[in-house]
Amino acid sequence: MPLTPEQQAEIDASRSESRQTLRVVSEGLENYLYKAVPCLDHGFVRVIDYMGDDAAIVQAARVSYGAGTKKSRDDKGLIRYLMRHRHSTPFEMCEIKLHVKLPIFVARQWIRHRTANVNEYSARYSVMDKEFYIPQPEHLAAQAVNNRQGRGDVLEGAEAEAVLRILRDDAMSTYDNYQRMLNETFEGETIEEGKTGLARELARMNLTSNVYTQWYWKVDLHNLFHFLSLRADPHAQYEIRVFADAMCEMAKAWVPAAYEAFEEYRLGGGSVSKSGLAAIRRMLAGEEMDAAKAGMSAGEWRELEALLKG
Amino acid sequence: MPLTPEQQAEIDASRSESRQTLRVVSEGLENYLYKAVPCLDHGFVRVIDYMGDDAAIVQAARVSYGAGTKKSRDDKGLIRYLMRHRHSTPFEMCEIKLHVKLPIFVARQWIRHRTANVNEYSARYSVMDKEFYIPQPEHLAAQAVNNRQGRGDVLEGAEAEAVLRILRDDAMSTYDNYQRMLNETFEGETIEEGKTGLARELARMNLTSNVYTQWYWKVDLHNLFHFLSLRADPHAQYEIRVFADAMCEMAKAWVPAAYEAFEEYRLGGGSVSKSGLAAIRRMLAGEEMDAAKAGMSAGEWRELEALLKG
Amino acid sequence: MPLTPEQQAEIDASRSESRQTLRVVSEGLENYLYKAVPCLDHGFVRVIDYMGDDAAIVQAARVSYGAGTKKSRDDKGLIRYLMRHRHSTPFEMCEIKLHVKLPIFVARQWIRHRTANVNEYSARYSVMDKEFYIPQPEHLAAQAVNNRQGRGDVLEGAEAEAVLRILRDDAMSTYDNYQRMLNETFEGETIEEGKTGLARELARMNLTSNVYTQWYWKVDLHNLFHFLSLRADPHAQYEIRVFADAMCEMAKAWVPAAYEAFEEYRLGGGSVSKSGLAAIRRMLAGEEMDAAKAGMSAGEWRELEALLKG
Amino acid sequence: MPLTPEQQAEIDASRSESRQTLRVVSEGLENYLYKAVPCLDHGFVRVIDYMGDDAAIVQAARVSYGAGTKKSRDDKGLIRYLMRHRHSTPFEMCEIKLHVKLPIFVARQWIRHRTANVNEYSARYSVMDKEFYIPQPEHLAAQAVNNRQGRGDVLEGAEAEAVLRILRDDAMSTYDNYQRMLNETFEGETIEEGKTGLARELARMNLTSNVYTQWYWKVDLHNLFHFLSLRADPHAQYEIRVFADAMCEMAKAWVPAAYEAFEEYRLGGGSVSKSGLAAIRRMLAGEEMDAAKAGMSAGEWRELEALLKG
Repeated sequence: MPLTPEQQAEIDASRSESRQTLRVVSEGLENYLYKAVPCLDHGFVRVIDYMGDDAAIVQAARVSYGAGTKKSRDDKGLIRYLMRHRHSTPFEMCEIKLHVKLPIFVARQWIRHRTANVNEYSARYSVMDKEFYIPQPEHLAAQAVNNRQGRGDVLEGAEAEAVLRILRDDAMSTYDNYQRMLNETFEGETIEEGKTGLARELARMNLTSNVYTQWYWKVDLHNLFHFLSLRADPHAQYEIRVFADAMCEMAKAWVPAAYEAFEEYRLGGGSVSKSGLAAIRRMLAGEEMDAAKAGMSAGEWRELEALLKG
Repeated sequence: MPLTPEQQAEIDASRSESRQTLRVVSEGLENYLYKAVPCLDHGFVRVIDYMGDDAAIVQAARVSYGAGTKKSRDDKGLIRYLMRHRHSTPFEMCEIKLHVKLPIFVARQWIRHRTANVNEYSARYSVMDKEFYIPQPEHLAAQAVNNRQGRGDVLEGAEAEAVLRILRDDAMSTYDNYQRMLNETFEGETIEEGKTGLARELARMNLTSNVYTQWYWKVDLHNLFHFLSLRADPHAQYEIRVFADAMCEMAKAWVPAAYEAFEEYRLGGGSVSKSGLAAIRRMLAGEEMDAAKAGMSAGEWRELEALLKG
Repeated sequence: MPLTPEQQAEIDASRSESRQTLRVVSEGLENYLYKAVPCLDHGFVRVIDYMGDDAAIVQAARVSYGAGTKKSRDDKGLIRYLMRHRHSTPFEMCEIKLHVKLPIFVARQWIRHRTANVNEYSARYSVMDKEFYIPQPEHLAAQAVNNRQGRGDVLEGAEAEAVLRILRDDAMSTYDNYQRMLNETFEGETIEEGKTGLARELARMNLTSNVYTQWYWKVDLHNLFHFLSLRADPHAQYEIRVFADAMCEMAKAWVPAAYEAFEEYRLGGGSVSKSGLAAIRRMLAGEEMDAAKAGMSAGEWRELEALLKG
Repeated sequence: MPLTPEQQAEIDASRSESRQTLRVVSEGLENYLYKAVPCLDHGFVRVIDYMGDDAAIVQAARVSYGAGTKKSRDDKGLIRYLMRHRHSTPFEMCEIKLHVKLPIFVARQWIRHRTANVNEYSARYSVMDKEFYIPQPEHLAAQAVNNRQGRGDVLEGAEAEAVLRILRDDAMSTYDNYQRMLNETFEGETIEEGKTGLARELARMNLTSNVYTQWYWKVDLHNLFHFLSLRADPHAQYEIRVFADAMCEMAKAWVPAAYEAFEEYRLGGGSVSKSGLAAIRRMLAGEEMDAAKAGMSAGEWRELEALLKG
């Protein structure tokens, strides 16, 4: 379970106090506020704060004085238009702040998205928790053979067991050694009298990168959608996709019209190259096409076929 | 007056509807929400939305589960520490969205601050209002003689009158020609039958750069402080400083502890060079110093003296 | 002509001095270095410096020790793969620095691209040149009727003449008044004895926004491509497209393989929505489709038809 | 030794080929090009490419046509002025690209600097090398007692030995298990027939965070100086400071005048708060001051005293 009773109590306390505001409110996202949505074995995402809603996108696009149009139908149409024509700035007018607990190797992918604000738990300053990501057996993917960046089938039997045993044992034993070098526990008790203890900023290097860290991460809606379009994608590594999927649900609750447009034009849509468009035109004119006729590599042709098959 | 009765009515309507939220609320900034704070003759700044408060800075710095400490004294100390040691990321966890009406030549300075989100009123799409910045006589500064980037004394008498007449007349006559080329009024009526009207995206080039534009501008607190440290500074051009000063008041209402730290360590503080520190040390040891002894240029020495005189 | 003889002499001097370097060199772009490529009536773009070439993209993608593969065929394939799959970071490893002279209303669109470095000629500090953009008669577009952001037919006869006369006269007369308020010419001579002269930072507000400014603009290749995909597009305003088109030629000379991939996957390609893909599938299966069947608005359907017609 | 003979040969080949260019050349940095400057036990920094020199900063600040002034004395004065007054954009006109090999826990600090371009070696795609950072005994710092983020004395005797043994053993054994799970060596050979091998993107999670990774990192000079001001600082963690120190030498060779200004106004200078300035004024007037009189906390007063003691 990702939360201690104390943490759960703090969250409950935050949810129990409702306040008055003149700001716009997203009813859908208020339901999510502060709650931890579990991801992987010890991780979570929870919404800490947000700014704006669907109407705020419209209001900014129109640089208007009031709160946007009253007709939500017009708003929806404008939002679709903005998304379709890649007018990204109105989507930047909404902002969300998340608290995320995630393994370090996932954090390292995540942080590559630079247009966001981050405050991470400091392992220079504090002692890390003894929590490590250990995959479920059904996620123990083998290395893909044809595609070097990706997963193939799932490991089975003795090999799977051996892998899980290694991951668990190495996590535990490196953590124990981490504590031994620090000469203190997470709660700060000294382990052995007479020892000094290695600096935390050094001892942390002994932890394997499935150890959990956590951070506050704040991003605008445009950049959130960009993140989700890459990380909620089937080609993304499963362990980050789990977080992206949870955040998709949050975005849907927060800005339903914008999310619908995002699904229509980004998640569910596709890019077609110049040669791809030419090939589709010839196919619509009744011609049988293949990679050679289309002037495409085998890989590109497969990708186009996959897109057209759905 | 910067607002039409319709706009004022929209603002009043926005302020009349209070909603429930679980988010943190800044009581101080709620008072500002939607109201237009006048700047220059036709401009304004108004807060459209915000995220976070002083406690949110602390909460992010600690990556905590609940709402920050209860003891506001501890929070204040931590905020001062963060500001002093340039730990900027916790300040990025607060965000504000403003609606600003400002002359184009001010907008051109403002937009140089890149880490912000902007939606500007489109003169490709819409007709510009007939509103131009005309300085008050006491702001008709002469070109500074010793310092080429800056203002000297105020123009007087006939010269001042002539300048004001030029600014007014050229603004009005170029605007009239703008309308004539468009062949439509701001409300969309055709001026002369039988004419086609020049494209708006072209006609706008005839407007002088004291014409007012407007935009939605969203920024995090760290970058707002950076903006204010440059633009609320006596060396900033008066016309942008007016806006910066108004925003300082808003920041003070929004995050009083952070603003106090900002005043202490940025606005009211100063940077001293290596040579400057060495000079101060010798002065504290009783030595009489001058530019030559300090190894500084005349300009640098003057700047140091000014800093030490206060 | 955009350059004075002195400026041309400085450029010629820069081009006459060849130096030794161990860095990679793009032969194609060396030809462009320092030369001013004319844009509009008084503007230009010129390459001041660059970093990297096609091989540098490959080298970064592979995080390799040497200079990339020797087989340019492999490099090209990898570059196409990276572009197709939106792996943008290797393209960020090339950088270009341009000197651009452009009208202010174009500069205002341009600066909206935030991920770039800019140093603009300062009208607070210096006096502006008397150079204004006046469109060629064939670019005097009328306001589009069906689409409010865009151009329709070209103005003709007396209306065109009147527009050109206004643009010319207002530019000249506001500039003359600018000089009068400054009480100095561009070369610094006083116009009328006994007058003080208005501060430059104020006087500039009287200039119309077709006055030319200039800046140094530095950007990485990924963000240059993003800029070009928006500004070399038929929907971009003609006056910025002229600059984008000139920069496309430079990019082609600089990184021919990357530019070819950019043309194939961005400039010449297209995005298709989820509904659009579904519609194409049904059309390929022989079904007659229309907007209603596809579940698309009339506008969207037109856009899809246009894409499939080429 | 951080490089294989093959890598060294590639570097030597790159250094042997000199080319002609019309671009500005920094003689000082040409000496550094491609060579690996060792950092820590297996790491390095090496310059891959650069753009601009001291004169380029001046040229951009002046938006000039030619190559900057001929008088390097004027250039130096302007560069000092720009640095002193925090005119950062001209420094953004220089760019450098580095290849860095560094432990993951250092990379995680480094990547927090967002305004840079990065391509990292992919552990999803490739097998990691068996190289881990093991501190020299003299860097085995104890946890500081008074300051929780920082280092105290150096560990000694049996405790030091035990720590080093743990770090070495855990690195080796987790790496061996990494290989075992992958069922392949770094060169790609299968370890045990009949096993499938875990996906690389999963197996990497078993590596401790002192394992070395590498990346291409590209940054402009302004942001490099910002990085160095934080990471070449005595408060920075030793392991990243080693890299920052090496980069300081490179910056000095590249842009000597800018680096000198950076040392004078940033590295060697200091910020003084409003209260600090007031205290200095009173001290210069002969008053004995302390924390209470200055209205400062004990910590702040200590910091001011340290600054004034040098």
